[in-house]
Amino acid sequence: MSKIAVLGYGVVGSGVVELFYKNKESILKKAGRDADIKYILDIRDFPDSPYRDKFTKDINDIVNDDEVTIVAECMGGATFAYDFVKACLMKGKNVSTSNKELVAKKGAELLAIAKEKNCNFFFEASVGGAIPIIRPLHKCLAANDITYIAGILNGTTNFILDRMINENMDFSDALSMAQKLGYAEKDPTADIEGHDACRKICILSSLITGKHIYPENVYTKGITEISLKDVKFAEKFGAAVKLIASVRKLENGKIIPMVMPMLVPYENLISRVDNVFNAVMVCGDGIDRAMFYGRGAGMLPTASAVLGDVIEQLKTEGNGTDLAQTWVDCDNSEILDDYKESSFRMYFRLAGSDLSAPEGAEIVENGDEIVFVTEKMTISDAEKLEADFTAAGAEVKSKIAVLEI
Amino acid sequence: MSKIAVLGYGVVGSGVVELFYKNKESILKKAGRDADIKYILDIRDFPDSPYRDKFTKDINDIVNDDEVTIVAECMGGATFAYDFVKACLMKGKNVSTSNKELVAKKGAELLAIAKEKNCNFFFEASVGGAIPIIRPLHKCLAANDITYIAGILNGTTNFILDRMINENMDFSDALSMAQKLGYAEKDPTADIEGHDACRKICILSSLITGKHIYPENVYTKGITEISLKDVKFAEKFGAAVKLIASVRKLENGKIIPMVMPMLVPYENLISRVDNVFNAVMVCGDGIDRAMFYGRGAGMLPTASAVLGDVIEQLKTEGNGTDLAQTWVDCDNSEILDDYKESSFRMYFRLAGSDLSAPEGAEIVENGDEIVFVTEKMTISDAEKLEADFTAAGAEVKSKIAVLEI
Repeated sequence: MSKIAVLGYGVVGSGVVELFYKNKESILKKAGRDADIKYILDIRDFPDSPYRDKFTKDINDIVNDDEVTIVAECMGGATFAYDFVKACLMKGKNVSTSNKELVAKKGAELLAIAKEKNCNFFFEASVGGAIPIIRPLHKCLAANDITYIAGILNGTTNFILDRMINENMDFSDALSMAQKLGYAEKDPTADIEGHDACRKICILSSLITGKHIYPENVYTKGITEISLKDVKFAEKFGAAVKLIASVRKLENGKIIPMVMPMLVPYENLISRVDNVFNAVMVCGDGIDRAMFYGRGAGMLPTASAVLGDVIEQLKTEGNGTDLAQTWVDCDNSEILDDYKESSFRMYFRLAGSDLSAPEGAEIVENGDEIVFVTEKMTISDAEKLEADFTAAGAEVKSKIAVLEI
Repeated sequence: MSKIAVLGYGVVGSGVVELFYKNKESILKKAGRDADIKYILDIRDFPDSPYRDKFTKDINDIVNDDEVTIVAECMGGATFAYDFVKACLMKGKNVSTSNKELVAKKGAELLAIAKEKNCNFFFEASVGGAIPIIRPLHKCLAANDITYIAGILNGTTNFILDRMINENMDFSDALSMAQKLGYAEKDPTADIEGHDACRKICILSSLITGKHIYPENVYTKGITEISLKDVKFAEKFGAAVKLIASVRKLENGKIIPMVMPMLVPYENLISRVDNVFNAVMVCGDGIDRAMFYGRGAGMLPTASAVLGDVIEQLKTEGNGTDLAQTWVDCDNSEILDDYKESSFRMYFRLAGSDLSAPEGAEIVENGDEIVFVTEKMTISDAEKLEADFTAAGAEVKSKIAVLEI
């Protein structure tokens, strides 16, 4: 019988335990072997939990117990979680994690240890929550040259934008509502500034290039500057404002990952993704394009992804290293191209007198403010255009790229 | 070096060969071992093909060549393909297929042989073409109790309905256009009567129950009776008419798979799936719901799925039986519940005098014809309602269920 340890009994960890016991019979049937949760690691006490006998506060109980062959890390963060996951992998234990920060910061190192120790380091839950994306990308789409990935990888910001779009709430009211409903943290920085989405696009970028892409090297802009006005003008243009994390592979082999709010035209299915849902569009030379949609966070959705990994661990136990060779550490400057050279149609909203849109632009509004969408230009040229307008006395209220897939 | 045989050099088979050689370097890197295509089986001659040295007309060349460990079946049909796949599996060769008819008719038997011979029988391409759905459902979502699946599993009919919706074409003109563009066969029966979608929902039904579900036991209605009028009234109601293949798991453990045109409300992402694209929504107790979208057919999209399987075969060679235990043969009457007992809101379009909609119905149109959508009722009750209207002298022009997820 295989023994499992769950690290962390917060939202995700308790979901893992709950879903495991709820569907234990069918899970073990699919796994093809018997298994049980032996330990739950948490510094807190849960004297009333039906699982109270499984709790420990000491990671060494788990690390040094040879019976434990599978570890589900659901702690979050990249300090203790890093130490604990590393210690487990060093002992040859198979690890599954929902921790995007850990994978985005330490993936290459942990994958290398897993390879050396002939065990698996899985992280399906780290991107898109319940949405199967890591394994489909790594396995089902493996015959493709993946050229572009773009999607909504953060549910909190999508909820906020959805309220702005559908309920005419302004950003701060929508954020408060997200906090009230538990979709946003008290300190919402990681979500609204795009850091969370950035970690996830780094993981996908690493997966398609085989090189570890670090979050600090990726252009990241959040949604705090998006105004209700922009959302409404976007609507008039026929698009929804969404926080888009994307990565494009260039013909020179380099990539441009980036996170920023974008106008997503209604023809694109991503524009229709509402509430806290996530969606990832993947383009490749075989598939053309495919999209994966679902809940990007939450107790049971994330637990579903962690347990999918655990079942795979059970099936392949003693035959590990499945994802182990997927990416290695690298000097990011060698693989990242300058994001300012990517081209988009650009939405501008300007205030001032005697303003006119550049040639070829589509005028969305011409009243107190002038709002237009340009032809395709590089971000660099859009910045020059912005500077020109400013020099001419205009106030550039917003500048947002339009997604084209 | 592993040797691969491709059975059939039609649209899919030639796509497999093309995509394999196009991305050979990265494919073999992901596979972790060297491999090449040794044989292509086809009864036709291809003297000018760059691969002419690989062609054979005799399946025995492949079956009896112990070097060949992986076979990609792209012939279609369930006669020769069945014999050939069976012969290959009996020899312990790993088989990947795009052939939904074969899997829907003979899956249980072929999976049993694969298990016995310790090799893999994979069929990712058999449902949803390029869309990863078999492996995500089988692996990533394995911790879930899957309660409902509904989607667009046939691109030809979706193209036809899309033309009716967006270009006001009537059914026969849209069908002609689909034939001209190569999306529909000369004999379009399998598509427009729903048989193709039925085979695919049978495969998904088998996957979630572990029991082989046979197409002839599944209620299947195509789109030939859908009129432009219905499409337009659906629009007025706020829905798109789509051919929906679905399977619901009931609390008694039985299932109801069915294929029929349905009104899909605009809030549901499936309503936005246009052109020849497919999409599958999956509901489970962990994930809530997830959707998979992409190209359901075509040369390279289907080849992408077949080759994804081939890469997995290469990675797991000598360690097969991955899908082997997924489903077994069974008496379908023990697992299928009566589809007439499923409940839906029902759209009715009636002609006649002195007609009135039943209590609680939402009136869509009340002119020469009366069009309404009822409250939820069983299909059985909807048939009674239809009979009552007919008895009262009305002509029931259409009766279409509304999808609710």
